[in-house]
Amino acid sequence: MEQVDEESSKSISKKAAKKEAAKQEKLRRRQEAALASAAASITIEEQEDPLAVNYGNVALNELQSKEETDLTEWTRVGDLNEELKDKEVLIRGRAQTTRAVGKNMAFVVVRQKGFTVQCVVTVQPDFVSRQMVKFVAGLSRESIIDVRGLVSVPSVPIKGTTQQVEVEVRKLHCISKAMPTLPINIEDAARSEKEIEEALQAGEQLVRVNQDTRLNYRVLDMRTPANQGIFHIQHEVGSIFRKFLESEGFDEIHTPKLIAGTSEGGSAVFKLDYKGQPACLAQSPQLHKQIAICGDKERVFEVGPVFRAEDSYTHRHLCEFVGLDVEMEIKKHYSEVMGIVDRLFVTMFDHLNEKCKKELDAVRRQYPFEPLKYLRKTLRLRFEEGVQMLKEAGVEIDPYGDLNTESERKLGQLVLEKYGTEFYILHRYPLAVRPFYTMPCYDDAKYSNSFDVFIRGEEIISGAQRVHVPELLEERAKACGIDVSAITTYIDSFRYGAPPHGGFGVGLERVVMLFCGLNNIRKASLFPRDPLRLAP
Amino acid sequence: MEQVDEESSKSISKKAAKKEAAKQEKLRRRQEAALASAAASITIEEQEDPLAVNYGNVALNELQSKEETDLTEWTRVGDLNEELKDKEVLIRGRAQTTRAVGKNMAFVVVRQKGFTVQCVVTVQPDFVSRQMVKFVAGLSRESIIDVRGLVSVPSVPIKGTTQQVEVEVRKLHCISKAMPTLPINIEDAARSEKEIEEALQAGEQLVRVNQDTRLNYRVLDMRTPANQGIFHIQHEVGSIFRKFLESEGFDEIHTPKLIAGTSEGGSAVFKLDYKGQPACLAQSPQLHKQIAICGDKERVFEVGPVFRAEDSYTHRHLCEFVGLDVEMEIKKHYSEVMGIVDRLFVTMFDHLNEKCKKELDAVRRQYPFEPLKYLRKTLRLRFEEGVQMLKEAGVEIDPYGDLNTESERKLGQLVLEKYGTEFYILHRYPLAVRPFYTMPCYDDAKYSNSFDVFIRGEEIISGAQRVHVPELLEERAKACGIDVSAITTYIDSFRYGAPPHGGFGVGLERVVMLFCGLNNIRKASLFPRDPLRLAP
Repeated sequence: MEQVDEESSKSISKKAAKKEAAKQEKLRRRQEAALASAAASITIEEQEDPLAVNYGNVALNELQSKEETDLTEWTRVGDLNEELKDKEVLIRGRAQTTRAVGKNMAFVVVRQKGFTVQCVVTVQPDFVSRQMVKFVAGLSRESIIDVRGLVSVPSVPIKGTTQQVEVEVRKLHCISKAMPTLPINIEDAARSEKEIEEALQAGEQLVRVNQDTRLNYRVLDMRTPANQGIFHIQHEVGSIFRKFLESEGFDEIHTPKLIAGTSEGGSAVFKLDYKGQPACLAQSPQLHKQIAICGDKERVFEVGPVFRAEDSYTHRHLCEFVGLDVEMEIKKHYSEVMGIVDRLFVTMFDHLNEKCKKELDAVRRQYPFEPLKYLRKTLRLRFEEGVQMLKEAGVEIDPYGDLNTESERKLGQLVLEKYGTEFYILHRYPLAVRPFYTMPCYDDAKYSNSFDVFIRGEEIISGAQRVHVPELLEERAKACGIDVSAITTYIDSFRYGAPPHGGFGVGLERVVMLFCGLNNIRKASLFPRDPLRLAP
Repeated sequence: MEQVDEESSKSISKKAAKKEAAKQEKLRRRQEAALASAAASITIEEQEDPLAVNYGNVALNELQSKEETDLTEWTRVGDLNEELKDKEVLIRGRAQTTRAVGKNMAFVVVRQKGFTVQCVVTVQPDFVSRQMVKFVAGLSRESIIDVRGLVSVPSVPIKGTTQQVEVEVRKLHCISKAMPTLPINIEDAARSEKEIEEALQAGEQLVRVNQDTRLNYRVLDMRTPANQGIFHIQHEVGSIFRKFLESEGFDEIHTPKLIAGTSEGGSAVFKLDYKGQPACLAQSPQLHKQIAICGDKERVFEVGPVFRAEDSYTHRHLCEFVGLDVEMEIKKHYSEVMGIVDRLFVTMFDHLNEKCKKELDAVRRQYPFEPLKYLRKTLRLRFEEGVQMLKEAGVEIDPYGDLNTESERKLGQLVLEKYGTEFYILHRYPLAVRPFYTMPCYDDAKYSNSFDVFIRGEEIISGAQRVHVPELLEERAKACGIDVSAITTYIDSFRYGAPPHGGFGVGLERVVMLFCGLNNIRKASLFPRDPLRLAP
């Protein structure tokens, strides 16, 4: 299902999808049953165990803040290394997999935040009983366990774990039991298309978890290495965005999401009743961030939800996404805004490539992609130049119209071939395709002081110089068919002295999706909302 | 109106308020008229001016990104100092005030981001004509102007400006004209109660701008030094919150604000139609941040809007505010969460006191307050101890009930007297007054592993260990009268292995309000939303 989760997905027959899902489910259950029967085959005489204190399920009472914590006792799985040889450690993590070897030995791979270590439970007088081995072998996958043991260094490299040491278990307690059969298995959810295809060619059918099932069980899907990577990268994008802007003198603002009336756009808004008044959810912080500029904030940014009630079923639209918004005074030219875009994103890409290697590798293992090609100084191309490049490549488009998805992608290819970059700015868009508050060009009112920014042929940023002259703003609103009486507070904001200014908006999920070359924006949103999805 | 803008404000007669507003308006207009007639008294023979290029209103065309910007040309008002003596500078800012001295000289105080400088326009051959002096004297207040001139250092200190140099003007152009009569004057909006009272005692009635008028014209009100300070402090609070948590291994997440059904709380939610499905706005990111923890995010935070449709008309409630939310795995005890609260806020207060001196002073000049008293290690008091302290002070309260606003304030006083701090944690609240997902105490199920945090006797934070055991969670939900079928996804999230965890939520505006000792949360929200206000 993964590959077809694109704009075309609507057309796929629901029947076929259901049939495929049923087949996958059957396959999964068969595998589960085999595993369960293997675990059950370990039979041990049930008897009083003098070593019972060393293992078992922890009673709820023990987990209700009974004792103060001594955090120095604990070691992180990712910190387990050869230097700790023969030292006793205490770790907490998930039982990723368990495996019994006869009645006297069991292995459990413990996972914590993407790091894994193999723990060995061997029958030993004074420490480990057969019953304990059985208990460990019978742990359901994804249960949370506490393990106390000695670090040992095997003579041969350990396959399948990140840490190259083992833990010889002395004590092992289960903190939280997972259901024996999970709705989706982490290893299934973590599988790449390539693995599935290769197995198929070798005659083996592996489970493929489709995008919808992943989202239904996001709590499990989130645990895959790729998703741990994606959402840490998402965190980093937001973090760099803020830090860079802060270093350039921007302040964060918080504008209201509850707006009187029906927002500037008119259509595609979520409407609600606000204490008897008609209200809607903000489609962008545009008007308020401009008011903040008129209120002498000089340079502002915002990170917050943006709501679009559009019926878009594409791979790149959501009904709720995180907007990264910027607005700033300019002295003379909208290139001051493009300068911020340029340096902000080059800084961001550099940082991600440098500091998120592990995360990017994890994403790449499941969803292969090429590193983003970008220049030290971001290419700025005029809209007219773009049109010309497309024309020369045989694509005819309206010079005063907008680019469609297809021509954007084509232009992306042409730019990559000619300039060697997958990240560039296209500016001086036709005025007719931009919002009413966009400043027309000084020399040709058919064009505007605006720009879009593209990654891998898809738009991620829209920006512009804004109209700061109330008379012109009113005129432009009327020309665009907007009810001026509904935006008087906004227009009046420019009557008390308004500095020339501009700004831009970025979709956080799009940045993550396109930097990582993902095929669906839902992969870059923790709990996506689209016309068909309002859960979990 | 300022002082009564408290919980009691509802009871104030609307008539009296209207009458007062009309009186203020009359007073204001009278002052405006006086100023206007003073400006008009400067009459100059109208004639062709050979120096006309040095001043005037800039044509729109010049402000439409006609020329690329050379940012090195520009100096910030805050950077003007004696080292620049005799240097030519170019500044942009607002004409805060203008004053003519005869026909040959005018002063204009230029303000940029809270800094002010006096600019002197004197008739000089080759540079400044009488017409230019007239133009400058006639500038409407709050207009945006570009000034080019030489820096000079007067022999006596300059009163009323932040910069201790002057600019001898060579060129002065108006970029954006403000209306000659503003709905509120910045100097009126910037006035402290004390000034108004003192003037009144001296027989002079000064304009007092009430809270509602301020919010109606927030774009002007925002420009006062106090508000510039407040909203920069708000920025810093968010910034330190994130940076501290990042340094402790927390990742930012973004949870959806559009939620199916009617949210966990049931009442006081904003409802809307989501593509034919009943939906509501999230009252907190509680459920989703816990799902993220079960999804192995380990430590997360979120900064985002929170929606409460409550009919609260108090000085400390908003219908939309910015929630700072934290959720984290714990090893054993909810004191791990309190430890984060402790260090986070001590770090924050230290930082604000150190890095925001100028802003705090600006706030204090208009709204006097004492610096917050807090300890290096935050006091933790048990709920039972709090009840006992109140009892000893003669306040009887239900030991298994909640504190009301009055007893919270009283306890704040008692704590200040006994421990010398206005910031403390009260923990082990009665279970009955906490949400269903709160973990009961291990030794007494009438109490819970929860806490509130207070500043100056008012609650700003609520936190707790959460129930991570699905069976107990279900039981608690039922006990609290919650429809378990509506929260199955949430409860199921704990069936796949769930680590013990806890967290807390903070209201950004409350932190700012209480740190700065403001009397109304609307002063700490750029565009507040309350049951009566949905604009601007």
